Amino acid sequence: MENATFSPVSRVAICGGTHGNEMTGMYVVREMQRQEADQTGSVSITTVISNPRAVEVCRRYTERDLNRCFTKALLSSPITDSTPYEVRRAQEINALLGPKESQEAVDLLCDLHNTTANMGMCLIFYSLDWLTLHIYKYIQSNMTSAPVRALLMSSPKSEAYSLESVAIEVGPQPNGVLRADIFNMAKEAVDHTIEWLHKFNSGSTFEEGEVEAYTVVKSVDYPRDPTTNEITATIHPELQDNDFKLLQPGDPMFLSFSGETVKYEGEDLHPLFINECAYYEKKIAFHLAKKITVTLPSISVKKD
Amino acid sequence: MENATFSPVSRVAICGGTHGNEMTGMYVVREMQRQEADQTGSVSITTVISNPRAVEVCRRYTERDLNRCFTKALLSSPITDSTPYEVRRAQEINALLGPKESQEAVDLLCDLHNTTANMGMCLIFYSLDWLTLHIYKYIQSNMTSAPVRALLMSSPKSEAYSLESVAIEVGPQPNGVLRADIFNMAKEAVDHTIEWLHKFNSGSTFEEGEVEAYTVVKSVDYPRDPTTNEITATIHPELQDNDFKLLQPGDPMFLSFSGETVKYEGEDLHPLFINECAYYEKKIAFHLAKKITVTLPSISVKKD
Repeated sequence: MENATFSPVSRVAICGGTHGNEMTGMYVVREMQRQEADQTGSVSITTVISNPRAVEVCRRYTERDLNRCFTKALLSSPITDSTPYEVRRAQEINALLGPKESQEAVDLLCDLHNTTANMGMCLIFYSLDWLTLHIYKYIQSNMTSAPVRALLMSSPKSEAYSLESVAIEVGPQPNGVLRADIFNMAKEAVDHTIEWLHKFNSGSTFEEGEVEAYTVVKSVDYPRDPTTNEITATIHPELQDNDFKLLQPGDPMFLSFSGETVKYEGEDLHPLFINECAYYEKKIAFHLAKKITVTLPSISVKKD
Repeated sequence: MENATFSPVSRVAICGGTHGNEMTGMYVVREMQRQEADQTGSVSITTVISNPRAVEVCRRYTERDLNRCFTKALLSSPITDSTPYEVRRAQEINALLGPKESQEAVDLLCDLHNTTANMGMCLIFYSLDWLTLHIYKYIQSNMTSAPVRALLMSSPKSEAYSLESVAIEVGPQPNGVLRADIFNMAKEAVDHTIEWLHKFNSGSTFEEGEVEAYTVVKSVDYPRDPTTNEITATIHPELQDNDFKLLQPGDPMFLSFSGETVKYEGEDLHPLFINECAYYEKKIAFHLAKKITVTLPSISVKKD
């Protein structure tokens, strides 16, 4: 593969508190603000608490999930008295860090999230972008405290419902709780990202190589009572906390409240976000993904 | 010690959803309702979802912590338009299961709770009651899936802010999440309790013996910024998840966001409810308790 070159990545945004009950991101951002880490060498950093009203009340959102408000349609919708707070806030953030997909937008946006699932560190991408995938490879090689994996979402960028170039998910952590191990993981990933950008901007070449990533094939809902629509089972103890471990036909999947095991049927796939709190309202018990390998070209900064 | 006798324990209430985001209790109660487990031999069981409005929105409470509404003052306060929902609901529950401390009250009330802390199963008592302590001993001898411990609160019963004779706390579980292992632990404890009551009511003698229990000595808050009052550290990784393990002077206690360790100073004590989600708003990082040994007399049912 040929070497690919990119313009310097000089404007970066680090966001936390996009979901107001995911504590890691907001405390990483506040600590960066306290340390006034807004300019480090070749990189200018903007730190943002994305949803301060939700942070204030320690809830995922106040009226609408902010992380679903960055579609083209919502970003350009006129503001009226009945516009939900999060749609207004999405437009504010888009004015501050974007506009999305424009020349004025920040070069890289990292949005820090938590999950109650045992996901370790998972970077979520919305496109096969060599630059962010190289950052992923760098974080993966340098992080020792947790497994680092990547999840590639397939929606087109303009329709992607969130703003970020990369979402950094860390878990397991209960909502409304701040664990030191999870805080340190996220902080380390941010530090490695900024370190990578300095190296890149100052002329380092990052060699070609392969990375693994997951792509979601489908989502699985909990078993439900056909009359009440209430869940009748939860994740089986043998599946719980085994995110990324291959799920094969016959493996226990759910355990009903009266004690019956529901087994998995279907092709071998990797379960992700098992028993994620925020997915109950979305009727998702877990995602099922397949693993792909992506070959990256070597990359370096574009010379003038 | 002499044998102690008690009247039959024939009316029992099992409550869940006292905190609307603690999922175990509400699903144990719903499953008991589905199985119509309201009368099993010598025991009549009333099952209650304590705070249905909070359950509906999956929050701890809507206006006021229901578990702090069962004081004599609040139970007898007149209802006005501005009375919080939970105070009304406490009075409703008191009419249904009480009145508290009266002859008409249920003989035993078990209230099912969750904690985000690594507490295993912890039974919380408000008085040294031989009967409930014998149930604790029985559960402890028969549970294999988790350590079972007891916490003795010292407030007088009339001023105790909650209604229950015994609160069963199980964890760790994130709020808004339902884990099968934790569900099974709570269900097993309820089953053992009912089993014990049948044996007791039908004339079994429970032998004298000793049980261990914890009593809270003091609570410890997070380190805070003196100006903003925001927390500046979280639980140290070496303390996190080590509930009940003796904390000794010099042991790491907090890790600040900039990486400094704060060590414990003081007498040897046992930390409880470490990093419990609901305690952030109460400014409690964990409780510190001492261990006591209680000698129980043998007990049996009072013969007519």
